Amino acid sequence: MKKHNFSAGPCILPQEVFKEASQAVLNYNDSGLSIIEISHRSKDFVDIMEEARSLALELLGLEGKGYKALFLQGGASTQFLMAAYNLLQTKAGYINTGSWSDKAIKEAKLFGEVAEIASSKDSNFNYIPKGYEIPTDLDYLHCTSNNTIFGTQIKEFPSSNAPLVCDMSSDIFSRQLDFSKFSLIYAGAQKNMGPAGTTLVVIKEDILGKVERQIPSMLDYKVHLGKASMFNTPPVFAVYTSMLTLRWLKKLGGVAAIEELNEKKAKLIYSEIDLNPLFKGFAATEDRSNMNATFTLVNEDLKETFDTMCKETGINGVNGHRSVGGYRASMYNAMTMESVAALVDIMGDLERKA
Amino acid sequence: MKKHNFSAGPCILPQEVFKEASQAVLNYNDSGLSIIEISHRSKDFVDIMEEARSLALELLGLEGKGYKALFLQGGASTQFLMAAYNLLQTKAGYINTGSWSDKAIKEAKLFGEVAEIASSKDSNFNYIPKGYEIPTDLDYLHCTSNNTIFGTQIKEFPSSNAPLVCDMSSDIFSRQLDFSKFSLIYAGAQKNMGPAGTTLVVIKEDILGKVERQIPSMLDYKVHLGKASMFNTPPVFAVYTSMLTLRWLKKLGGVAAIEELNEKKAKLIYSEIDLNPLFKGFAATEDRSNMNATFTLVNEDLKETFDTMCKETGINGVNGHRSVGGYRASMYNAMTMESVAALVDIMGDLERKA
Repeated sequence: MKKHNFSAGPCILPQEVFKEASQAVLNYNDSGLSIIEISHRSKDFVDIMEEARSLALELLGLEGKGYKALFLQGGASTQFLMAAYNLLQTKAGYINTGSWSDKAIKEAKLFGEVAEIASSKDSNFNYIPKGYEIPTDLDYLHCTSNNTIFGTQIKEFPSSNAPLVCDMSSDIFSRQLDFSKFSLIYAGAQKNMGPAGTTLVVIKEDILGKVERQIPSMLDYKVHLGKASMFNTPPVFAVYTSMLTLRWLKKLGGVAAIEELNEKKAKLIYSEIDLNPLFKGFAATEDRSNMNATFTLVNEDLKETFDTMCKETGINGVNGHRSVGGYRASMYNAMTMESVAALVDIMGDLERKA
Repeated sequence: MKKHNFSAGPCILPQEVFKEASQAVLNYNDSGLSIIEISHRSKDFVDIMEEARSLALELLGLEGKGYKALFLQGGASTQFLMAAYNLLQTKAGYINTGSWSDKAIKEAKLFGEVAEIASSKDSNFNYIPKGYEIPTDLDYLHCTSNNTIFGTQIKEFPSSNAPLVCDMSSDIFSRQLDFSKFSLIYAGAQKNMGPAGTTLVVIKEDILGKVERQIPSMLDYKVHLGKASMFNTPPVFAVYTSMLTLRWLKKLGGVAAIEELNEKKAKLIYSEIDLNPLFKGFAATEDRSNMNATFTLVNEDLKETFDTMCKETGINGVNGHRSVGGYRASMYNAMTMESVAALVDIMGDLERKA
């Protein structure tokens, strides 16, 4: 039975990427060696790293604009502290859209003053704060573009005189934005880019070198930039597989093409949520994420029936996070319309049955 | 043509591990899903993580002795700073056996006083220092068990009243030691354990909580211990493949069995280096590494001929590091006698030709 994988992350990647990555673990490029046994200093891997870095910038429209891309380790959780370690001299501003922002704020507080300049905590983070004032004395302003748990997504980004730092872990490469508004973008690979185990960091070099503290080498963006993302042994398989996914995206038509598909998938599921009286959406309509649709059953008694229907249809990973309950359909770039339609079909079936 | 992969790391892993990992990237355990698209919170992956952690302790003979195992990210390079962040309150002692120790010392200096209590720098690190005095006021004593670049290996570890911290990246699981002498062992996976992208940390919990500084969450061993190595999304593929390699080692008879094989391989190559007048070994005889044999040609004019012979025999990754020159044969756990014999054969052929 075909599986429809709605996992929030690690999550679905393109089938052709699974095939190519699987083959490379056996025998990379007909070299007689596995991709995971070759030296990271070999021409084969240096080429992979350079292609990954350059595809990332190209797909974001940031080539030739003073940006560099790095593939590091440690996930967004490490970036929470690295961003502050490298950039927070006195005071930083954070927009709190729930859990991930919360964690980023906690780590930043070890390095300086953190102004939480807006928050939607008052309503269990079911909306994106708007209309707040931004102090003018910030070292940087931090936001989280998409919240996987609550299913919210920033549609209009704040503008500030301070560098804009954004955790785009869960929606990078999913929609067109003017990425040059951001000075630092970071994203764990395991949603739209690749397997867990590498983190994309896209950085405008001119924001560095402004803090006085000494930074340990592995936490210093300058050190990684100086070594072209090869200061230490990179996570070879995760970088290779990310590069394959970025190649796939480019071939498909890039971010513009995938944005169109992502909007269609989102429209399909949100229409069903809105029209089907058995379900209700969690996030405020105007802030709904195109990546993670969160919704609950109006009548919880139907849960067992619906869970069984999901299982019988091969639908996987739709349980909501405990902070929200209900269901969450994560529809990252590699998810097909067919899979979203399979979910929507059984939501309709449930209505007809009930 | 069969390849004989002598890469220093990332390096050879067992062929059956490549096969199983490759299959799991297509379809894990007949689930219809790739290992890299399943949630790290799924029972499937939680079981993998627990098996990996428990196999690591079992193979080191550390079960039930107050140790825990973690699979983190960032390589030994991140451990250089984490060890100091978590343990260095006033003064730490480091034994400098070259490059990796050097880097560890550099990071530790950001956190307190570092006493370099012994070094073999005077002789380009071609031996392991011995007979040094160890101060009695150390927060911990740090050493590097095996140096991949110079081909040296500590045979007798220092004893100290301070906790012993050891970077075992390049020889963990390769030989029997009383591992309970160490309070903290760390090792990047990419030699004897798995692909690049995860780091094994084995820690005796009672050494923690003794420094006053606040530690960022991702750098805090206590945080990772409290979350059973799942504080954030772990590098799923690297942990899975490491677990497969540890299973393979256990099935083979564990560390005792592989130690016997590693000694045979080392004997074979070092005998050739010593008997063949065209080659000379780099490291002091008594400190020779069983993992990385470093040697040079007595007459550099033969280099092109020997390099061609290597290529024609499918011998890969034997170029020495630039700090030593010549050749380096890395013979990690998964390397077969057959491959070492193939290298020794052409060394003999060169002698007969020359």
